[in-house]
Amino acid sequence: MTEQRIADLVNAFRNGDARALARAISLCESGEGAPVVAALHALAGNAATVGITGPPGVGKSTLCAALVRKARSAGRRVGVISVDPSSPFSHGALLGDRIRLAEHFTDPNVFIRSMASRGHLGGLAGATADAALLMDAFGLEFIAIETVGAGQNEVEIAELAQTTIVALQPGSGDSIQVLKAGILEIADVFVVNKSDHPMANQLRREIRAMLGIMQYEGWVPEVVATQALEGDGIDALWEAIERHALFLNESGEIERRRRERFAHQVRAIAAGRIRALVERAIATGSDDGDPYAAAARALASLGIQE
Amino acid sequence: MTEQRIADLVNAFRNGDARALARAISLCESGEGAPVVAALHALAGNAATVGITGPPGVGKSTLCAALVRKARSAGRRVGVISVDPSSPFSHGALLGDRIRLAEHFTDPNVFIRSMASRGHLGGLAGATADAALLMDAFGLEFIAIETVGAGQNEVEIAELAQTTIVALQPGSGDSIQVLKAGILEIADVFVVNKSDHPMANQLRREIRAMLGIMQYEGWVPEVVATQALEGDGIDALWEAIERHALFLNESGEIERRRRERFAHQVRAIAAGRIRALVERAIATGSDDGDPYAAAARALASLGIQE
Repeated sequence: MTEQRIADLVNAFRNGDARALARAISLCESGEGAPVVAALHALAGNAATVGITGPPGVGKSTLCAALVRKARSAGRRVGVISVDPSSPFSHGALLGDRIRLAEHFTDPNVFIRSMASRGHLGGLAGATADAALLMDAFGLEFIAIETVGAGQNEVEIAELAQTTIVALQPGSGDSIQVLKAGILEIADVFVVNKSDHPMANQLRREIRAMLGIMQYEGWVPEVVATQALEGDGIDALWEAIERHALFLNESGEIERRRRERFAHQVRAIAAGRIRALVERAIATGSDDGDPYAAAARALASLGIQE
Repeated sequence: MTEQRIADLVNAFRNGDARALARAISLCESGEGAPVVAALHALAGNAATVGITGPPGVGKSTLCAALVRKARSAGRRVGVISVDPSSPFSHGALLGDRIRLAEHFTDPNVFIRSMASRGHLGGLAGATADAALLMDAFGLEFIAIETVGAGQNEVEIAELAQTTIVALQPGSGDSIQVLKAGILEIADVFVVNKSDHPMANQLRREIRAMLGIMQYEGWVPEVVATQALEGDGIDALWEAIERHALFLNESGEIERRRRERFAHQVRAIAAGRIRALVERAIATGSDDGDPYAAAARALASLGIQE
């Protein structure tokens, strides 16, 4: 992109043109976002970001739609990032997700974006971080980051959020086992969705028991029961999110999280750039079967000594 | 570790001392494996490695135990790597897994190792790659790599294996959705475990339908029904694994996979070393909120220009 076209894009973005926001995010996805982020990052820093994760089928999209409705009724401008790990088999789910958000499609104060690209140097997490930063800079005040599954990507993406909601489903039996390493550790608020299920109380007890085992410092995760389809419990969830935001602000934790998030983003970008260089060094190097020696040679060829 | 102690370890390893193998793997886990791998890597290259992955509860451990039994009855020396993503909540599962392998505990020709460390520079996948390489160098001929869940780590770890088995469970309903991005794409053999389940045939049809959608070149994944607890279908699975090994050899694909695996391992080690350097550069750098600029500064401080 020429400098002139970038300047035009930045201007349109500053003037509140949602198409410019969409275009800026696309540039980041394809690895060309650096100049746009350089021009706009200073506008960010005001949004509340909420990550929603949990096993498939738990009702994350319904929960997300209910939170968007709540945020809109509180007068907030809203962004939704729907994270799709690019599986050919998750398109159906994603389509379903978007249908649940359909009531917000015509609302100019709700910006919905799904992330599926792998072109970003920092991977999906890097592209999502850029999208959240740009939405924030655009003036969106409540940003929901919804993930399609529960895996490594989701842990990384939850690290972008100020408040992370882990949704669980009663009666799924192996809900605890399904949770991947680290998923439990990142929860700020647990949601027991489908609270009308006969096993809902048991799941709440199980979560409380797990929380008792974990050693939390500062914030202890709250447990909220919802029936997102009917809107039940959404007010309580909203209040838990606000209490968590208050805790972050009063404890100074918010600044620590912001720094961590930033370092995480820098790391992802730097690692991506280096990956391309290492790839080249590997391709031109010899292969005698000793991976440590080959790694040392590849690094040495980049001028990096250990 | 002193050079003398490393030389002693390498000698004991060459003499077939299983404790030396265990110690060498531990060194790799803690990031100190380079000299041991340098001395031993040339002995590797003869093992058949089989990865077993799939959603929790599908019976991976039972399947793994049945394959170990089969390999032993074929006279092969066996290694088992059980990959635990270090969640405080997966210890129970891991314990259960090991119980299923209990009949092999006293067999000197079965070496069982669970990987949980995060000390390895290349992460869990890097440590697992080292363990597989060392077991191979030790003379183990059949190496089963079993993963506890189905996520990003599992995709990386499956890349280490010559043959990847994806196990699925009938009647789990969302079995397809549960599969994370990339999991389907890595399968060489699908196993429908618990084949006595009334939904088993439906799951086989679903898998075949999915295979019809995918565009495979060369090897088309086989679908095998097992009832691992009873040993049913294990012979058929073993034959599928052998057909796949034959395909790899005859097509020359095995050499391509070996090179890819090696590059993957080098990449993991190099990335780990660089991560530590980038971390230092980030810690000493300034933070004005532009992650791309900060990444460029961090790289420049390492002498890397873009």
